[in-house]
Amino acid sequence: MASLRLVALKALHRPSSLWKCNLSHSFLPRTHAFPTVRPFSAVMSPPSTAVVYDQHGTPDTVTRIVEVPPVELKATDVCVKMLAAPINPSDINRIEGVYPVRPQVPAVGGYEGVGEVHSLGSSVKDLSPGDWVIPSPPSSGMLFDSFFFFLGTWQTYIVKDQSIWHKIDKGTPIEYAATITVNPLTALRMLEDFTSLKSGDCIVQNGATSIVGQCIIQLARYQGIHSINITRDRPGSDEVKDKLKKLGADEVYTESQLEVKNVKALLANIPEPALGFNCVGGNAASLVLKFLRQGGTMVTYGGMSKKPITVSTSSFIFKDLSLRGFWLQKWMSSDKAKECRKMIDHLLSIVREGKLTYEMELVPFSDFPTALDKALGKLGSQPKQVIKF
Amino acid sequence: MASLRLVALKALHRPSSLWKCNLSHSFLPRTHAFPTVRPFSAVMSPPSTAVVYDQHGTPDTVTRIVEVPPVELKATDVCVKMLAAPINPSDINRIEGVYPVRPQVPAVGGYEGVGEVHSLGSSVKDLSPGDWVIPSPPSSGMLFDSFFFFLGTWQTYIVKDQSIWHKIDKGTPIEYAATITVNPLTALRMLEDFTSLKSGDCIVQNGATSIVGQCIIQLARYQGIHSINITRDRPGSDEVKDKLKKLGADEVYTESQLEVKNVKALLANIPEPALGFNCVGGNAASLVLKFLRQGGTMVTYGGMSKKPITVSTSSFIFKDLSLRGFWLQKWMSSDKAKECRKMIDHLLSIVREGKLTYEMELVPFSDFPTALDKALGKLGSQPKQVIKF
Repeated sequence: MASLRLVALKALHRPSSLWKCNLSHSFLPRTHAFPTVRPFSAVMSPPSTAVVYDQHGTPDTVTRIVEVPPVELKATDVCVKMLAAPINPSDINRIEGVYPVRPQVPAVGGYEGVGEVHSLGSSVKDLSPGDWVIPSPPSSGMLFDSFFFFLGTWQTYIVKDQSIWHKIDKGTPIEYAATITVNPLTALRMLEDFTSLKSGDCIVQNGATSIVGQCIIQLARYQGIHSINITRDRPGSDEVKDKLKKLGADEVYTESQLEVKNVKALLANIPEPALGFNCVGGNAASLVLKFLRQGGTMVTYGGMSKKPITVSTSSFIFKDLSLRGFWLQKWMSSDKAKECRKMIDHLLSIVREGKLTYEMELVPFSDFPTALDKALGKLGSQPKQVIKF
Repeated sequence: MASLRLVALKALHRPSSLWKCNLSHSFLPRTHAFPTVRPFSAVMSPPSTAVVYDQHGTPDTVTRIVEVPPVELKATDVCVKMLAAPINPSDINRIEGVYPVRPQVPAVGGYEGVGEVHSLGSSVKDLSPGDWVIPSPPSSGMLFDSFFFFLGTWQTYIVKDQSIWHKIDKGTPIEYAATITVNPLTALRMLEDFTSLKSGDCIVQNGATSIVGQCIIQLARYQGIHSINITRDRPGSDEVKDKLKKLGADEVYTESQLEVKNVKALLANIPEPALGFNCVGGNAASLVLKFLRQGGTMVTYGGMSKKPITVSTSSFIFKDLSLRGFWLQKWMSSDKAKECRKMIDHLLSIVREGKLTYEMELVPFSDFPTALDKALGKLGSQPKQVIKF
């Protein structure tokens, strides 16, 4: 980590020399294209300070903070001064090169975030300096079949076409505006895209303390849907239980509490769940399956235990269970994503009502190396790290 | 087995004493109700010889052959002289009591079959003596929530309301007429109910030598759909491969032949399959998953290895696979089953074209104990046993 810190300081203090030696013309063609012939009246962005990586690998060794030169705004471009952007686990995986779809290197890190409009290309009418915007969808393009474009939100200024920016209500806390897509939208889509749930119905999930898990509890409760929540056995599980119940969880069990013959006998006044969510795998996934009612669906969106999911034959034939998966980035490339800005506005309004909360730590950009260490789990369990620029 | 044979002989030779001591009035209320006051002109069925079980258990110890007395036909009843009925694995499981939905004991064994109309109630107009009929659907009623009615086809005469009988073309070989529902209809529904396939597409399956597997190969080929088939490693696998290729299989691999890094590299001119079928579980199920294309679906309808299905997290999230199950008996209680007679006619026409074949052994009813031994696997690998009455 020492070497990154050193480079980071160098980058912050000696930007001009650093970008010259480290960035090629092919770097950042969409966010900061190098100027060619510049008309006298052209609008230029400020230089941008960015977290970049030239190759895939361990994030604290391959990322560097560098200065990127000013960019000329085309007529439909918008220059956004970034306010905040989180370090999500999937950002780590993209840098590591273990994510199925990843940016071409060199690339700027980060996927989602919020910024303030700094300056506008000559033909932009729908945005004004000072507006708050988020990239929505945060990346675009076809999956698997063709090029996928990544924005790279870990930088101080981004210049991109007006079409990618979605204006949001400035009454939203920036850490929520910065993180509204990856976790809350995943929770919302998973609640709505697999089974038709109505008020009074029930869902079951493992990994309930994850941010998506907390969003599921709160968004379910917002719709009058009960939730059964499964957590790991660990010290402090009573506090965890209290915390999740305060968010709206109906039932919270640790895995060991569910080592009973008939888990459904634990349910008193809650109907059997038709929908379950799995972000753990292994035994925790089997427990979700046990709770599901005849004909129910389990959606897998993570595998924290790194163990596979094991299912009996009779679960498929006689219990008629369906097992599916959800990946927001794929959803973002689907037709349904056309509606994503309405969904984001809906989620942000729930945040402003105080009915969607989760723990985050806002960290100054200058402390990026420490935030990265925390996101990498080097400093024990930590809240989600959100960079404040 | 000796005791069953003895009872069987006794039953066949001393019917009147046997049914009196073994059958209660609650037995067979729908097929052979005991007469109360009988008008002089009433139509009576002949007595029926039936394979019954009074309790669940090992089929060769709990089944007995008994004589059931004549039944009076109500106005809408039809008396059918059974011609043939198979011993399916699910019939065995019902007798063992390990099937999720099972008849109330005492019960007559058997689920599907074909018969000839023997006599008619006074108001039956659409059938005539000599017509061939099959019970379609072979049982009816709600699953899980309420009573489920089982016909019991292992008997010489059945009296049931005209509504359950479906007249079929007498040009059909009786062994196919007797077995057209459980295996071929399962294959047809699985090919049509999960993914929209068109000519030129491809499916993959394990357990390809099972009768459902053979039906899938042939029904797929009938629609211009390619099939990739996985079989067990065992002596004679070359002969098995030749046999399946003659039925229309495009590719046949044993499990060990698929111990390669990239199974898809084996496919030359066949597209990646969007649909897979699993009746084995364990490694054979994982091989089906490996072949499936992005977004594909695997349908489980059996678990011959008695091993569960194990799936990686990334198969759900990044490969977007769906895992489902199929159970014909549940399908039979769904709305879709209203169309089942058209499907049966379609399947029987393919049989008569010679494009749907599978191996069976027709066995006289008097040899039922031996047929049961063969169906129970006591005499090695045997073709499906079909009782000829």
